[in-house]
Amino acid sequence: MRLLVNHSQAEITYLSAHQYAGQPVTSLYYHLFDFKNCFFKEFKLEEAIEEAEFFFIALPHGKSMEITPELLKAKCKVVDLTGDFRLHDKELYSQWYKSDHTAPGLLGKAVYGLPELYKDKIKKAQLVANPGCYPTSVILAIAPLLSSKLVLESSIIIHSLSGVSGSGRGAKEETHYCFCNENVSVYKVGGTHQHIPEMEQELSHLAGGEIQISFTPHLAPFSRGIYSTIYLTLREEKTTTELLETYRSFYRGKHFIKILDEGIYPQVKAVRGSNFCHIGLEVDKRTGRVIVFSAIDNLVKGASGQAIQNMNLMCGFSETEGLEALVLYP
Amino acid sequence: MRLLVNHSQAEITYLSAHQYAGQPVTSLYYHLFDFKNCFFKEFKLEEAIEEAEFFFIALPHGKSMEITPELLKAKCKVVDLTGDFRLHDKELYSQWYKSDHTAPGLLGKAVYGLPELYKDKIKKAQLVANPGCYPTSVILAIAPLLSSKLVLESSIIIHSLSGVSGSGRGAKEETHYCFCNENVSVYKVGGTHQHIPEMEQELSHLAGGEIQISFTPHLAPFSRGIYSTIYLTLREEKTTTELLETYRSFYRGKHFIKILDEGIYPQVKAVRGSNFCHIGLEVDKRTGRVIVFSAIDNLVKGASGQAIQNMNLMCGFSETEGLEALVLYP
Amino acid sequence: MRLLVNHSQAEITYLSAHQYAGQPVTSLYYHLFDFKNCFFKEFKLEEAIEEAEFFFIALPHGKSMEITPELLKAKCKVVDLTGDFRLHDKELYSQWYKSDHTAPGLLGKAVYGLPELYKDKIKKAQLVANPGCYPTSVILAIAPLLSSKLVLESSIIIHSLSGVSGSGRGAKEETHYCFCNENVSVYKVGGTHQHIPEMEQELSHLAGGEIQISFTPHLAPFSRGIYSTIYLTLREEKTTTELLETYRSFYRGKHFIKILDEGIYPQVKAVRGSNFCHIGLEVDKRTGRVIVFSAIDNLVKGASGQAIQNMNLMCGFSETEGLEALVLYP
Amino acid sequence: MRLLVNHSQAEITYLSAHQYAGQPVTSLYYHLFDFKNCFFKEFKLEEAIEEAEFFFIALPHGKSMEITPELLKAKCKVVDLTGDFRLHDKELYSQWYKSDHTAPGLLGKAVYGLPELYKDKIKKAQLVANPGCYPTSVILAIAPLLSSKLVLESSIIIHSLSGVSGSGRGAKEETHYCFCNENVSVYKVGGTHQHIPEMEQELSHLAGGEIQISFTPHLAPFSRGIYSTIYLTLREEKTTTELLETYRSFYRGKHFIKILDEGIYPQVKAVRGSNFCHIGLEVDKRTGRVIVFSAIDNLVKGASGQAIQNMNLMCGFSETEGLEALVLYP
Repeated sequence: MRLLVNHSQAEITYLSAHQYAGQPVTSLYYHLFDFKNCFFKEFKLEEAIEEAEFFFIALPHGKSMEITPELLKAKCKVVDLTGDFRLHDKELYSQWYKSDHTAPGLLGKAVYGLPELYKDKIKKAQLVANPGCYPTSVILAIAPLLSSKLVLESSIIIHSLSGVSGSGRGAKEETHYCFCNENVSVYKVGGTHQHIPEMEQELSHLAGGEIQISFTPHLAPFSRGIYSTIYLTLREEKTTTELLETYRSFYRGKHFIKILDEGIYPQVKAVRGSNFCHIGLEVDKRTGRVIVFSAIDNLVKGASGQAIQNMNLMCGFSETEGLEALVLYP
Repeated sequence: MRLLVNHSQAEITYLSAHQYAGQPVTSLYYHLFDFKNCFFKEFKLEEAIEEAEFFFIALPHGKSMEITPELLKAKCKVVDLTGDFRLHDKELYSQWYKSDHTAPGLLGKAVYGLPELYKDKIKKAQLVANPGCYPTSVILAIAPLLSSKLVLESSIIIHSLSGVSGSGRGAKEETHYCFCNENVSVYKVGGTHQHIPEMEQELSHLAGGEIQISFTPHLAPFSRGIYSTIYLTLREEKTTTELLETYRSFYRGKHFIKILDEGIYPQVKAVRGSNFCHIGLEVDKRTGRVIVFSAIDNLVKGASGQAIQNMNLMCGFSETEGLEALVLYP
Repeated sequence: MRLLVNHSQAEITYLSAHQYAGQPVTSLYYHLFDFKNCFFKEFKLEEAIEEAEFFFIALPHGKSMEITPELLKAKCKVVDLTGDFRLHDKELYSQWYKSDHTAPGLLGKAVYGLPELYKDKIKKAQLVANPGCYPTSVILAIAPLLSSKLVLESSIIIHSLSGVSGSGRGAKEETHYCFCNENVSVYKVGGTHQHIPEMEQELSHLAGGEIQISFTPHLAPFSRGIYSTIYLTLREEKTTTELLETYRSFYRGKHFIKILDEGIYPQVKAVRGSNFCHIGLEVDKRTGRVIVFSAIDNLVKGASGQAIQNMNLMCGFSETEGLEALVLYP
Repeated sequence: MRLLVNHSQAEITYLSAHQYAGQPVTSLYYHLFDFKNCFFKEFKLEEAIEEAEFFFIALPHGKSMEITPELLKAKCKVVDLTGDFRLHDKELYSQWYKSDHTAPGLLGKAVYGLPELYKDKIKKAQLVANPGCYPTSVILAIAPLLSSKLVLESSIIIHSLSGVSGSGRGAKEETHYCFCNENVSVYKVGGTHQHIPEMEQELSHLAGGEIQISFTPHLAPFSRGIYSTIYLTLREEKTTTELLETYRSFYRGKHFIKILDEGIYPQVKAVRGSNFCHIGLEVDKRTGRVIVFSAIDNLVKGASGQAIQNMNLMCGFSETEGLEALVLYP
């Protein structure tokens, strides 16, 4: 809503939230004065279809596949921020999400919403599956390496740090200030995070062959952001300079991807509030590995900002509309 | 000093600090009321030797090798917290520290002060080289795997997060609150950190063959602590349960090493202020890797606490004397 | 438990917690390895009385007055950390706690557990009402001024900042990291906090006349600690030096009260983990006011540490037993 | 620069910074990609006058009074962010800033740049003295009370918390992460802060009589923001509802002032990055005092944002131009 309110082509006409139905937006965030007369509603399909033509869906996993097919039938366009339509393979879905997919027919129709890779498909899509926050930070960071076959596909090791907002608004033990501050912890260890199949699907597609990754998510004491450090073994010797050139070519014209100068590496705070993805890298000559670093704001490029970027493409707006605010630093 | 003041066998009789010479300890930290009448002195060898028989040295790298030989000649015992005596090979020292070693004769004499590995040697040593903070967190975390030859030596990838106190007391851009808070950044990228040769020396020794590691240090928003996540490829399939058993055997009787139960992983806050090293691990069956996590307080097990542990061994005191305080949490 | 485990005279023989009954202590805090075989029990009076002779009670307000009378009948000694027995007047209790007191007979018997003011009474007490965290920080900070009648009693304005642990372990919106970090907020505004009558009772007693205070509690982004800034109007001109001398006389021999040197003021981090109360002050000549600053650790001097200090007095142990750890800084 | 880059009427044509002369903006903040070809220059009057017609001056105190008279002679307009032209009385200046004013003739000409109070004067001004961050948060918070003579002028006690960016970019002991995080401290105690005369000048003007305040600034662990809690004694009984109505009338039509609903109080994070000032209040019936809370972003409404608001008025632009971004939360 913070981003949409400044979008020249979009208007919020329908707003639903089961938990807060009947309450004004300001009951959650007193400072959103612009939404003083904006109330959350209990979702009703007819009402929704009547009041809006484009939908952003952010429901618990499994709920979107109930609603989305109805919205599509009614000719609405949808960006789905859940995991329901990201995987192309319903077996893979069942395996990782521990339940059957009830709208498998849409799995082939949904476009994976990473605009830097699938811009043309997104432009024509009615349903876009907005990527997970971790996959966004990871796929963007190493797509050029896999696409150009510069690294051993079996060597990918991903270390990600997520800010606390990644755990949601809910008050939980692991979001308690006294737990988070001055701490770092790890969760879903041993290759069990549900974002793994999504990353493997996309990275395999880029590499033209099946890829398995090691992915370990950590929780770090900052509110917003994902910082990924990715280790890969080079097939043959390359310099940092050469690889940076490969990246710049790959992402030429992609406004939201910033390839940092040699010797400069991302900081997670330097993307806060923005839709940018900062990428830096360095070759470790001793070990023949390249280490890639990426930083995004998990709530913007990792969620809402990317969703708006997808909407912009799906509706024929300028790709950057509503997403041009600079980083707030410090 | 915080730790020594509660040590039943030690007394602080001589205290030197060039930058603060002539000032009381309380001019730096008003709350150290117990040291109200304790003043920093300009170092003078004769005075030092007269007033003390055991020395902790924490000088800029290169300065210890000027003083330590004199202290040893005077029959004093020394725990050196600098990097001057950690490497056995003077060529390696020159290569990584960019200067020649001026007391190479002592390199063979100094014992690497990791009591969990070298207890017997430390007991007899006159000079102990206290390990770096990163090496402590890393070597302890994977010694059992290397020693038992369960992993591929070429596969070791180390991701470390250090708290801000690791950058020292000095006011620098990278220690500014507005830079550090809500941020994560990386430094000495590409295998360039001076703690690398120290880790490789010790890990090679454990493995019985030369090892090269990938090591990338990051700066994270907490005051104290080092959190290392280490990725290694298993030679053959092992379960998490089996590996934890290997660790428990390896560290049996080592008071300061805590092997966490299966499914529990370290948090860096849970060692704060203590001399413990917490270690947890998990096998990723899909990729055949094991991921090991370790947490230490960089100022205690990573520096002063370990130095006192070494002193305890060198002087025949109980190994845990002065180091028994529980963690302050939260 | 962290403090008691190092107490030479105390042993934990009975541990009860309704919410965690049946679970080991380590299920809450994995790092408390020393309590691996220590389980929380559902409270049962007979069992409790059989297994222990001294009780610390930390229950929701109103629950202690059910249990404490039974423990006293059984000749046990009790330090009650709730608000149930802090007020001497049952009408005042009803007014502020919105319920009737069911054990009013004990209100006269319970001693207010501020050892720096009531040491002799505490030594003889069977029931001690451990002060609230805010009252501890406030009463200690201005007792010398009221006792010596140097300030206008109607002029007392108290601004307190509490760390997040003051809100308890429970996961609530206001303890969420994303709410607390980089934020300050205020609560129970307008003279409504239930610690007010307790402060007024004790300050009135010190001043020898009825006192009303303005007290406004704020929530600040730190885990532990209370920082109070108190504004008072001087009856007649006094210098900072003179007032500090008054304070030093008043607190002579009180180990846990540290009156800071002129020009030095408390920091909340400088008491963390300790049972100390740091006090500093300054006269504002222009306005004729004195501003007093105090810092305590809300979980130690503001709760458990003071409770142990009271136990030490009640049982004839050394007042500082188990409470001698230095501050962990930074 | 972050704000100006989105301002439809302004263009940055000249940029000077002694310390960074010759360096690009990105050498300080790598993420300001939009300023990649923008270099800091050594200030030269002729060049400055030629390249720009409107100046923002943020120099060490005392330096602006050397440059500003020259810029004014050259018909340029100036918003001065230093303390050089905020006080109308040169004696008062000497007393608080400990040096003589070298351009006293301009003291009468400069307009105090608080647009909510001096809009008409600012519109006609060639030189505007941008208020200090603390004065902005304080004057806005209590102007309605003083203007309507509802409070005792001698009763004003101001407790302010500033974020760390208030101490500047410079690396100092008190801006070190290890000092700031999990801490609160106080500075310039006893009525000595140089913002006091500025507040007294403006509050006296509002009240129509001389006013002395108690002001105590504290340093708190957040990067941006000032949170002021102000205690005042009511002349006669008023309800919270009545006072809020007075505030709403006073600030009717003032876009950047938000009077919060009864029972809602400011949080400092809820103004971050914005030019808003949030104000809440509550009457304490027991003591006859009113407690007012205000929150601003010290770098926006407390500095650059207000400077742009002043420029907008001086140049006849819309008052809110360039300042419409919503708060970034969390």
